[in-house]
Amino acid sequence: MPLLVANAKALGFDLLEIAVEDPDAFDVERLRQAGESAGIGFTVCGAIGPDRDLSHEDPEIRANALAYIERCVEIAAALGAPHFVGPLYSAVGKTRMLEPHEREAQRTLAVEGLKRAAEHAAKHDVSLGVEPLNRFETDLVNTAEQVLELVDRVDSDHVGVLLDTFHMNIDEKSIGDAIRLVGDQLLQVHTCENDRGTPGTGHFPWGDLFEALKDIGFQGPLVIESFTPGIEEIAKAVSLWRPLDAEPDELARNGAAFLRSALTPPIAA
Amino acid sequence: MPLLVANAKALGFDLLEIAVEDPDAFDVERLRQAGESAGIGFTVCGAIGPDRDLSHEDPEIRANALAYIERCVEIAAALGAPHFVGPLYSAVGKTRMLEPHEREAQRTLAVEGLKRAAEHAAKHDVSLGVEPLNRFETDLVNTAEQVLELVDRVDSDHVGVLLDTFHMNIDEKSIGDAIRLVGDQLLQVHTCENDRGTPGTGHFPWGDLFEALKDIGFQGPLVIESFTPGIEEIAKAVSLWRPLDAEPDELARNGAAFLRSALTPPIAA
Repeated sequence: MPLLVANAKALGFDLLEIAVEDPDAFDVERLRQAGESAGIGFTVCGAIGPDRDLSHEDPEIRANALAYIERCVEIAAALGAPHFVGPLYSAVGKTRMLEPHEREAQRTLAVEGLKRAAEHAAKHDVSLGVEPLNRFETDLVNTAEQVLELVDRVDSDHVGVLLDTFHMNIDEKSIGDAIRLVGDQLLQVHTCENDRGTPGTGHFPWGDLFEALKDIGFQGPLVIESFTPGIEEIAKAVSLWRPLDAEPDELARNGAAFLRSALTPPIAA
Repeated sequence: MPLLVANAKALGFDLLEIAVEDPDAFDVERLRQAGESAGIGFTVCGAIGPDRDLSHEDPEIRANALAYIERCVEIAAALGAPHFVGPLYSAVGKTRMLEPHEREAQRTLAVEGLKRAAEHAAKHDVSLGVEPLNRFETDLVNTAEQVLELVDRVDSDHVGVLLDTFHMNIDEKSIGDAIRLVGDQLLQVHTCENDRGTPGTGHFPWGDLFEALKDIGFQGPLVIESFTPGIEEIAKAVSLWRPLDAEPDELARNGAAFLRSALTPPIAA
């Protein structure tokens, strides 16, 4: 774990995002110390599977989702991470043909759960960053407009928005307009190329993104979120059927350099 | 049916693409006559569901797929359509975590089926346009490079490639490079915006597309392929959970005008 953290620093990062699949699988205090030694901060990201679904009809699954989110908030607080982020409203990959009122009822369940999660987050001084996913990964919240509607209903100082370039590339008409619409509710940005490879190697309109981030005076973290086809569960979860353009370390190093070079002065990377 | 065909002309099109869900559901000769009266040509597109899967392990499903493709080729020929197009190698929406050799075995089944389909297509002087889909809709052929590999193995003068802007936006690093790579094997282009809305209203890099089409001297049809969230089966099949930017006729009219204005001299629309 100390090696992983030190490597993030060496590759050009100020922050390391920890995706929490199993909250019991790692030693939080040891991770915090490793960050302190390496001069690396943290953010925390959720792994929202079918049994952690805040908009599910089954109250047990909703309770399990809330318990998971609360646990992750505590991990974030213990790591000094400002944000716990992810598609907190639903399980990833759940898409169904629903009547509009059915989808609305699911969003209402998510809002209720997020209100309770927000109280816990406020106690720990952590903010929740709610992330739209593209249409193939959720039918509930695909756009900046939709996530703002959800977050406005939660109405908490400790709940904001995360936008991800991969999802925006599919579901937003304009990258810049999406960023400006979210404005000061934008907590964090996930970056990767249109094909989920190294930022800067494809046709994602990076210029529009950076211009809009400057327009809103964004000071939050830009995190590279990519995946490895080498781990089967991850490859399946994100539909990664062929190698990315680079091995993980190379992708991270080149991506960080690209993001830093595009931002003057750098925001973070 | 005559009304639909005349409407396509009125909206600014030279060609109407017929998606064949059920080959027995319409009167081909009546459609041909309607096209002749309206001065509209045709292309034909496949609806490739789970029982029409040329790379399936089950020989009955493969035989059913081949029979369907052959039937559609005959419909295309009867309509005077130059192409029968679609993701002819697999059912739409089939994504699985496979070992590389398993995926290769599936592609080999598709190549065998396409060779037989190509013989039938050659007899009827119709060409098959094989279309990559994005990673969420198939795990077999996501890119121009992958479809060329497949088509090269089929090795028929009557088999080429269709590229679709929606899928390219997700899976190609460079739109222009993808078009130039396919070159004179490109039979047809499906166009829609990055969010499947009206061409020209989002951030798809249209300039790159048009420049590359000029580079390769493309003379084939540009077809607007969009969908309506008003039909449940279609909405579910293409993950359309919210209204598009315009009603179908308005989308078609504005999209055709955009494509024509961008091409001087116009290729087709």
